[in-house]
Amino acid sequence: MILARVVGTVVSSHKAPKIEGIRFLLLEKIDPVTLKGKNDFVVSMDSVGAGTGEIVFYVSGSSARFTEVTEGKPTDSAIIAIVDNIEKDGSFTYQKSQ
Amino acid sequence: MILARVVGTVVSSHKAPKIEGIRFLLLEKIDPVTLKGKNDFVVSMDSVGAGTGEIVFYVSGSSARFTEVTEGKPTDSAIIAIVDNIEKDGSFTYQKSQ
Amino acid sequence: MILARVVGTVVSSHKAPKIEGIRFLLLEKIDPVTLKGKNDFVVSMDSVGAGTGEIVFYVSGSSARFTEVTEGKPTDSAIIAIVDNIEKDGSFTYQKSQ
Amino acid sequence: MILARVVGTVVSSHKAPKIEGIRFLLLEKIDPVTLKGKNDFVVSMDSVGAGTGEIVFYVSGSSARFTEVTEGKPTDSAIIAIVDNIEKDGSFTYQKSQ
Amino acid sequence: MILARVVGTVVSSHKAPKIEGIRFLLLEKIDPVTLKGKNDFVVSMDSVGAGTGEIVFYVSGSSARFTEVTEGKPTDSAIIAIVDNIEKDGSFTYQKSQ
Repeated sequence: MILARVVGTVVSSHKAPKIEGIRFLLLEKIDPVTLKGKNDFVVSMDSVGAGTGEIVFYVSGSSARFTEVTEGKPTDSAIIAIVDNIEKDGSFTYQKSQ
Repeated sequence: MILARVVGTVVSSHKAPKIEGIRFLLLEKIDPVTLKGKNDFVVSMDSVGAGTGEIVFYVSGSSARFTEVTEGKPTDSAIIAIVDNIEKDGSFTYQKSQ
Repeated sequence: MILARVVGTVVSSHKAPKIEGIRFLLLEKIDPVTLKGKNDFVVSMDSVGAGTGEIVFYVSGSSARFTEVTEGKPTDSAIIAIVDNIEKDGSFTYQKSQ
Repeated sequence: MILARVVGTVVSSHKAPKIEGIRFLLLEKIDPVTLKGKNDFVVSMDSVGAGTGEIVFYVSGSSARFTEVTEGKPTDSAIIAIVDNIEKDGSFTYQKSQ
Repeated sequence: MILARVVGTVVSSHKAPKIEGIRFLLLEKIDPVTLKGKNDFVVSMDSVGAGTGEIVFYVSGSSARFTEVTEGKPTDSAIIAIVDNIEKDGSFTYQKSQ
């Protein structure tokens, strides 16, 4: 799974029938130490109710179809967790504000 | 899923039997903020009737077989949505002209 | 799918039993606009009778097993089409000579 | 599979139901000769009880679902081995301390 | 499939039960023209009895589970052929010594 920040949304009115009603979020991959965006983006299906600005991790490939929201859908990316904290070498690089 | 612009078509008269009758579009990946092409191309099966110049997103890998058009086909890329708008940090970076 | 030129062959007498009798072609990925090779190579199973010098596109990942030649084989790359022409922004960047 | 060092953990209280109770470790890919980190990170499900500082290898893609811990889970990365030693060209580049 | 040279081994005494008894080889990807190593490494399951110094090609992704040795295993890389020769544009870039 890859860490990323939710930075926006992608809207489509003309799409494959199987993906009607699903939210597509624009994610920017981040460096897990500095938390800076890498200017590398992916459109991901949301399975957890993530919002703009939150740090999440998403699953790629066939496993993106293994959430309750995305089962059987044509998807290669699904957000499966909103991150509370990232710890590296004993220190937090990120802690979600309460 | 990855954002891209439809920039052309690829035609083949000699191909695997299972992919007869399918349209192959040439996509150029774009930066979702500047909308500029990245000079990185992929040949994708069209499942939504996309046309040249439109911004779309496509699904890669095994999930490319999960649309009605591509089921059971040897494909690793399928266009699943024509994009209406892209919103990043509260502003539109792209809005499809009416 | 990715566009490439057939540049050679790879021969092995000692291999997994399931891939006996299959042709392995050496492909060099190309830029679809300039048609120049990218010095990036892949070994692909041929499902369409492609020959050296031809421009083809191949499918990667699990879908490489979805041709009649490659079904059930341990393969992550299969040539599925010999390209007749590539059109970008209304002009041909490639037309196969007759 | 790719060699990496366990450098931390990622904690989430809001995630897909199927991944409750699984440990998510932060891995940094390493050069197998110098053992230096590549500043390239992945979040991986632990199937072997790996700890911070250990060198492991992980499996990516659909096969990440093929361990006892990760079966049926939405995962694209699972740690499947803690490395004892790495040998290259007849010399050890890494030997786990006893 | 990707061409690589077998450069070593990776040993683990603590690993997922399903991969007990399998040999893990360290591969370095090579340029198929110059045969030089690319300093890019992967740990691969051996299905053909490859030895150090040999040039092989391996399969990635789900298809790595489609050899007799690796069936049902958590693997994303399996060596499926020891290469005898590589031919590019009519000349051999590699011929295995007898």
